Amino acid sequence: MLASLFLCFALAPMLPAEPADVDATKKAIQKVIDNQAAAWNKGDLEGFMAGYWKSDDLTFFSGKDKTKGWKATLERYRKRYQAKDKEMGKLTFSELQVEPLGTDGAWVRGSWKVVTKKETLQGLFTLIFKKTADGWRIVHDHTSSG
Amino acid sequence: MLASLFLCFALAPMLPAEPADVDATKKAIQKVIDNQAAAWNKGDLEGFMAGYWKSDDLTFFSGKDKTKGWKATLERYRKRYQAKDKEMGKLTFSELQVEPLGTDGAWVRGSWKVVTKKETLQGLFTLIFKKTADGWRIVHDHTSSG
Repeated sequence: MLASLFLCFALAPMLPAEPADVDATKKAIQKVIDNQAAAWNKGDLEGFMAGYWKSDDLTFFSGKDKTKGWKATLERYRKRYQAKDKEMGKLTFSELQVEPLGTDGAWVRGSWKVVTKKETLQGLFTLIFKKTADGWRIVHDHTSSG
Repeated sequence: MLASLFLCFALAPMLPAEPADVDATKKAIQKVIDNQAAAWNKGDLEGFMAGYWKSDDLTFFSGKDKTKGWKATLERYRKRYQAKDKEMGKLTFSELQVEPLGTDGAWVRGSWKVVTKKETLQGLFTLIFKKTADGWRIVHDHTSSG
């Protein structure tokens, strides 16, 4: 009896997320996203990139273009926002909806806006998050604009 | 002892997906997507739409535009592909990657192409699937093109 009860307790952490865990997941992911926006708005692109899974398997879809890997994604941002005559501007996220899937996954949809001196860029995004050894990280980002 | 063993067995279906379940999930989702393409290529838009969650909470992101709800998504497809001087053409999906998240969720990334007499449209998509009472359904679709 004790052995089988022990087995049940041993399995308990593997059970699906309870509401309290869902809340904790949502808060943890919201914090990653908030940190990304804060880093961006200090001109800290590497800090912004800390929200992404530091892996060659990270994928980033934008319009018709696929980028694969953390480094390539950083380079893409550098070209778009830190090249000559470019600026990072002010980034805001809005209408965020964080939805856990299982205990170590989640997806997020929302809107993004970057305001620079010259223009306002805006669009939509869908993120896939996974809980990694380093915390919640974006493993896939799909972004699009008008 | 019997009671606690029973409890363990009762909890077993709630445990995280094993590899065999992951395979079954991938196959079930692949089938939904294959059925969508087959329906599209017979000009059956409602059949294509059967892959989507029939709910007002379905979301469809395309470029900078958000569409909410199954009916509004169907209307959007009708305007784009069944209006005067429009045609559905031939739809193909490629480079599909299906990734289960937990036991009743999954995400899918891939490329789409529609070839009509006049033009070739193509782009990328990210889908969120959930296991519903009716089977695996798309609850969110993010699509983008060049």
